[in-house]
Amino acid sequence: MRVKAHPFTSQWAVRPLDLLDRRWLSLLARKLRGAPLRIRLWNGASVATSEGPPVATVIVHDRTTLVRLLTNTALAFGEAYMSGRLTVQGDLVRMIEGVNRALPPNPATRRRAATPATARRNAHVHYDLGNDFYRLWLDDAMVYTCAYFDRPDASLEDAQRAKLEYVCRKLRLRPGERVIEAGCGWGALALHMAREYGVSVRAYNVSAAQLQYARERAAREGLADRVTFFDQDYRSIDGRCDAFVSIGMLEHVGPAQYDALGSVIDRVLDRTNGRGLLHFIGKNVPMPFNPWVTKYIFPGAYAPALGEMLEDVLQPHTFSVLDVENLRLHYARTLALWLERFEDQAETIARMFDPVFVRMWRLYLASAQAGFLSGDLQLFQVTFARAADNTSPWTRDSLYAHQSDGSL
Amino acid sequence: MRVKAHPFTSQWAVRPLDLLDRRWLSLLARKLRGAPLRIRLWNGASVATSEGPPVATVIVHDRTTLVRLLTNTALAFGEAYMSGRLTVQGDLVRMIEGVNRALPPNPATRRRAATPATARRNAHVHYDLGNDFYRLWLDDAMVYTCAYFDRPDASLEDAQRAKLEYVCRKLRLRPGERVIEAGCGWGALALHMAREYGVSVRAYNVSAAQLQYARERAAREGLADRVTFFDQDYRSIDGRCDAFVSIGMLEHVGPAQYDALGSVIDRVLDRTNGRGLLHFIGKNVPMPFNPWVTKYIFPGAYAPALGEMLEDVLQPHTFSVLDVENLRLHYARTLALWLERFEDQAETIARMFDPVFVRMWRLYLASAQAGFLSGDLQLFQVTFARAADNTSPWTRDSLYAHQSDGSL
Repeated sequence: MRVKAHPFTSQWAVRPLDLLDRRWLSLLARKLRGAPLRIRLWNGASVATSEGPPVATVIVHDRTTLVRLLTNTALAFGEAYMSGRLTVQGDLVRMIEGVNRALPPNPATRRRAATPATARRNAHVHYDLGNDFYRLWLDDAMVYTCAYFDRPDASLEDAQRAKLEYVCRKLRLRPGERVIEAGCGWGALALHMAREYGVSVRAYNVSAAQLQYARERAAREGLADRVTFFDQDYRSIDGRCDAFVSIGMLEHVGPAQYDALGSVIDRVLDRTNGRGLLHFIGKNVPMPFNPWVTKYIFPGAYAPALGEMLEDVLQPHTFSVLDVENLRLHYARTLALWLERFEDQAETIARMFDPVFVRMWRLYLASAQAGFLSGDLQLFQVTFARAADNTSPWTRDSLYAHQSDGSL
Repeated sequence: MRVKAHPFTSQWAVRPLDLLDRRWLSLLARKLRGAPLRIRLWNGASVATSEGPPVATVIVHDRTTLVRLLTNTALAFGEAYMSGRLTVQGDLVRMIEGVNRALPPNPATRRRAATPATARRNAHVHYDLGNDFYRLWLDDAMVYTCAYFDRPDASLEDAQRAKLEYVCRKLRLRPGERVIEAGCGWGALALHMAREYGVSVRAYNVSAAQLQYARERAAREGLADRVTFFDQDYRSIDGRCDAFVSIGMLEHVGPAQYDALGSVIDRVLDRTNGRGLLHFIGKNVPMPFNPWVTKYIFPGAYAPALGEMLEDVLQPHTFSVLDVENLRLHYARTLALWLERFEDQAETIARMFDPVFVRMWRLYLASAQAGFLSGDLQLFQVTFARAADNTSPWTRDSLYAHQSDGSL
């Protein structure tokens, strides 16, 4: 005897499947045990993953998504959120932060390094989305890295300016000095250094859209004679400099190229009193980046542990580490402000791209914020110098002397 | 036909030997090329090792010493200086600093770890030389680690007090909290924390002379109920604490025991808001300690590179590094002040021990000072916390807020 409907929907099959769904739901809940959330299925079945009140409810709209969540949770969550096969009711940031805090860290695996061609393609995917897009939610100087909130109530604009200043103070820039910047974004730091500190800057980047913007800005501000923007990979940096700076580029370098980066710094930096600053997203222990982020947001991204970066970038060249500061809470706040502005512009962005893009970017900004809040992501600023240089200040007092009056 | 004298002193042999001496001298000079010194032999032959004016003349008094200097320079220099078979006319510190700057760093080899029994014996050799000896040239609080000169003209006493304060501020101590200190010396920090911050302290040490002094002091100051001194190795630390601190002990741990140290910290530190500070002599790259120092001054000593310490002590336990500061110039100044006081007491010390001891310690203090000046030695203060703790201050402002008025 044959039944008309597909067996999975026939009367006799519903119950076993229903049982399976509940079993999968309970396995997923066990995997996320301790996270402050509730998971609800398309059929109304639901389970809480911790005793306390949930900060959000995750609604899984179909069986395929439920099964995928069991095997590759981070990637499946991201893809289902993007496609709308999963929705989140409640606080997305606090939900992800809670999941991060509940789950043990992944084991370490090292990622392959990007070749110059791959590096260029990776940068294109993200940074060439269009200056108009980034202008909608970044600060007015277009700084797309962690800000520095020297006052708790600082605006994003103030905090980004404070960050540029803070970096310049850590670098101890003096008029007439030569600076090389690797990965210069839209040029905000390069122009700030030239304008406020009277240095000359060679700034490198592989994003065409960013470079165009930066060059126009340098011309408009009359700084084109002191800031040169190069459409080149960090590996082809040349010239000599008194200070080397890189803000938010190391994440894209890949650990197999750390030695190459260290060699570049060693080659270009003044032998006597050269000093440098690396500002990058890091981890407490070596581990792979979130797989959804590396697939959809930052191809090739890798955030190193501090020790890993030191051993592979700075130590082989006997640089002396002067100062390390962890600014992860500043990045959480930066991302919160970006996400707020992003949401304000969500309709415009949906028209520029599409709703999937909006969900993708909302999830990226929210999960990055959550990562910094939960302590899964770190933001390290590492200041270093030539080993035999005795000119660095004895104390850090001068870094903080300017703050009380709020002047920059 | 037989000659009366030993062939080496016979007429026909003098000239070839003289030639050999000159050849050895020139080989030694080549080995030290670039160092600002002159080497003179017992026979008056002399050579400069660089173009510039020498800061000192090294006088080698016999052939055996000359030959030994060629093969194991650092050890032979130290032993000959101690025994008087080599003397230095001029500035000993600047001479060693100059040699450090001229010579390439040694390759890396890892030293074996000290067992608890060896650790105790190693500590005994150095720290049990007698409290009366150390009292002659340390500050009044008997702090035998790098001071912090928050003002350029600070006295040793002020700078050591400033260091204790600085460490307490970095640890963010609050009244009633529990602190564990590994390697507490004569107890200055433990007593300061209890007295000034109202915390209770469990302090560990394996030097009998230091412990006796520390306990008497705790009793005299009425702090014995809040500070307990344990005659135990760091490996047997137990209890729980809100803050873990270790000043100048890591140098004696040995890299093979870094994981054991990390495990101890992980075991005793509060899971939620535990934080810690490690203060230690380091290197820019992994390399063995000066062989003369490990033979005569600090058996078993090893100064790790920063990345090495992070990878082996903190990363395996997912601690979050909040702050790293390199205070090497402060240690150079501390050592200069110790050496000055030591020289003032040299006659007394020669009577307590003997002239060889005085030369041995002069060389140790001078070469340590030179090492910090030349950038061969670093002094790292590393502040860390549990990964998920969001209570650490956003900026370092509070570390420097107390300084302008000089109050502690």
